[in-house]
Amino acid sequence: LERHDMAGLVDYVQELHSADIADLIEQLHSDERATFIAATRGILDAEVFIHLDEIVRDEVLEYLRPEELAAVVSELDTDDAVYLIEDMDEADQREVLAAVTPEDRAALEEGLGYGEDTAGRLMQRDLISVPEFWTIGQTIDYLRETDDLPDEFYEIFVVDPRHRPIGSVPLNRAMRSKRPVRISEIMEAEPRIIPVDMDQEEVAYIFKQYRLTSAPVVDATGRLIGVITVDDVVEIIEEEAGEDILRLAGVADDDLFDTVLSTTRTRFTWLLVNLGTAVLASIVIGLFDATMEQVIALAVLMPIVASMGGNAGTQTLTVTVRAIATRDLTSANALRLLNKEFLISLINGVLFAVLVGLVAWAWFGVPLLGGVIALAMIINMVIAGISGMLVPMALDRLNIDPAIASSVFVTTITDIVGFFAFLGLAALVLL
Amino acid sequence: LERHDMAGLVDYVQELHSADIADLIEQLHSDERATFIAATRGILDAEVFIHLDEIVRDEVLEYLRPEELAAVVSELDTDDAVYLIEDMDEADQREVLAAVTPEDRAALEEGLGYGEDTAGRLMQRDLISVPEFWTIGQTIDYLRETDDLPDEFYEIFVVDPRHRPIGSVPLNRAMRSKRPVRISEIMEAEPRIIPVDMDQEEVAYIFKQYRLTSAPVVDATGRLIGVITVDDVVEIIEEEAGEDILRLAGVADDDLFDTVLSTTRTRFTWLLVNLGTAVLASIVIGLFDATMEQVIALAVLMPIVASMGGNAGTQTLTVTVRAIATRDLTSANALRLLNKEFLISLINGVLFAVLVGLVAWAWFGVPLLGGVIALAMIINMVIAGISGMLVPMALDRLNIDPAIASSVFVTTITDIVGFFAFLGLAALVLL
Repeated sequence: LERHDMAGLVDYVQELHSADIADLIEQLHSDERATFIAATRGILDAEVFIHLDEIVRDEVLEYLRPEELAAVVSELDTDDAVYLIEDMDEADQREVLAAVTPEDRAALEEGLGYGEDTAGRLMQRDLISVPEFWTIGQTIDYLRETDDLPDEFYEIFVVDPRHRPIGSVPLNRAMRSKRPVRISEIMEAEPRIIPVDMDQEEVAYIFKQYRLTSAPVVDATGRLIGVITVDDVVEIIEEEAGEDILRLAGVADDDLFDTVLSTTRTRFTWLLVNLGTAVLASIVIGLFDATMEQVIALAVLMPIVASMGGNAGTQTLTVTVRAIATRDLTSANALRLLNKEFLISLINGVLFAVLVGLVAWAWFGVPLLGGVIALAMIINMVIAGISGMLVPMALDRLNIDPAIASSVFVTTITDIVGFFAFLGLAALVLL
Repeated sequence: LERHDMAGLVDYVQELHSADIADLIEQLHSDERATFIAATRGILDAEVFIHLDEIVRDEVLEYLRPEELAAVVSELDTDDAVYLIEDMDEADQREVLAAVTPEDRAALEEGLGYGEDTAGRLMQRDLISVPEFWTIGQTIDYLRETDDLPDEFYEIFVVDPRHRPIGSVPLNRAMRSKRPVRISEIMEAEPRIIPVDMDQEEVAYIFKQYRLTSAPVVDATGRLIGVITVDDVVEIIEEEAGEDILRLAGVADDDLFDTVLSTTRTRFTWLLVNLGTAVLASIVIGLFDATMEQVIALAVLMPIVASMGGNAGTQTLTVTVRAIATRDLTSANALRLLNKEFLISLINGVLFAVLVGLVAWAWFGVPLLGGVIALAMIINMVIAGISGMLVPMALDRLNIDPAIASSVFVTTITDIVGFFAFLGLAALVLL
């Protein structure tokens, strides 16, 4: 397909949905992307660029001439257009803004004026609003006669004379009402109103919690200035959940499409922190080198205690990080859940203590060695359970993202406690 | 609030949204939940039960009498009602089905007939469909005169005489068209059609990819039998992303609300598998006990090599698991990404080899020891990068969920390679 048959490529691309074209571009090698953009110049839908991963998008936009970029930007809804140009450097941004119509420019500049990751960036400025004293008939006539309507809308907002939202009418309800019915009779009062500076995570939470399809956005004075629709929120929900999973492992959100050097750098930082942890653990082991020299079985067995603690701690911290993200863990149930974690880790600790104790005894034929590793196992698993819950909660309270920092702290704790408990007990009991 | 002032509680609950009431019930202790349900008997909206976590829901539904349960079920849309009763045991299910009206019963039985986690379970059976030769005027009159319309709908489906979907008209487009306009003139052809037995993950993917708000569902003969709306899909998207993060750590999806015993059991299984890994690693260490007895520094340093490999492997496998879930990793770019992983792990491997080599040399004053640990580090980090990518890909090809099994395999590999490379090289070089 690629390389030679450009006409065939153009035909093929024209049949695809913009999201699929974006996926196709992401799959291509960097060199191929330039060729692809050159070959499809002028026929690509503006939506394609919205669906691209950030890193790939930045690269692809470089291949477009400023006037092409301006055409793309004009074709998009305000929220999508802002999303597209927000990460450009200032010179490029100014070039694009200079090339679009004055109205578009004003809209884009306003959009860029809102903080990143806020409701203002997500919202669409085009919306339908009517006064409450209108009838359905007036509203339908207004919709039929106005040309400049948004592409998509799910409800009609009702505003007071000062343009503050006081209610909304879902389209399906408007459609099944007779012409003389007043808007005020069928509107739903008190829609959930989003302040323009609300964080996008909070917006996503509200949409999820109340199953909204769209919600009005107001400025500081309470005037209706935009609307957020569910399709924008779907992306954020998926992004947020995806972010946590990657952060727990210490990789960046766009690890997959980033360059080798940039990916290596982010991963290096995380590994460096973990090296610190590992060296700390080694220092603890070093305290007991004389003990190990006498009983070399200790060196053979010690990773078991640390590794089981690490895994148990990771289980608890993952559940906790997730529960904080979904707001299932609150101050009201924290103590109860901590108690539950304590019980779980105590039960599992005892079970694995017996298991590992027997294995160690059978392997080296020293019953006391089995006893030492069993006791160390119980201590480390309980500490793992408790710290797996307390560390992310404490980080969250300090406004540090628990997904990023928790696992370093917890595995440091379980490594140190694991080695110290096992080797320390051995030094006391076996020598 | 709780305990005594039941009247106050009732007032408070009546002001809350059903999703917030569900959260409140989840926060309560088990005993309190029974009291809460008793106190709010008859005033709780049926939607509350839909918002509850599965484990809590099962518990709460036990407190309801069969006729109350039937009332709840009748109040809900078909998809929500099926969702509510699908997990009940058969006797309870039969009781509920016996207590609802015959039409509801038929709808529920049909819903339960579709496989779990398929489009059939998600879809709503009530929908609006019109023939393409109707005019907007006829459609509006039909909507105004029919009482039994679905609560919410976003588009009108257009069907052929055999009731197969041939297009759709978004409500906003219908509203702004004049009465004499024919449906066929304004409909969008070829909507994305969902077969009733499609897996819900696939459904969620299609909604995300094409930013749909609703899509028609057809049976095996192509007849339109239902519609899936975006609000159901939002939940699945969040569920799926949440599942992966928990599965990577070996905990169950409803770990948070499950009982201590049941949680302990799932976590035990995972830890047992990891114990196997740890013991394997110890066996590898045991091969070199004589070497360690001579150079005890090896025992002190060896966890560093294994732990860095484990962390690097986890980074790669997390990115890979996520990329498989979001379908960003395909056979087309797998080789290129593998090459990238190889480069990243080689670069980081060399950097950490130098770092750790210098630390070891400085610590124990033996230059050769630094060389050995440096070489082992490079080997283990490269193996970690490659296996972190190949293991999840292989599991995915074998239709095993890579989120569940990858990390055990990868850490087993990095532990064994780490200890074997370091101690083996040491045995060769230092003795």
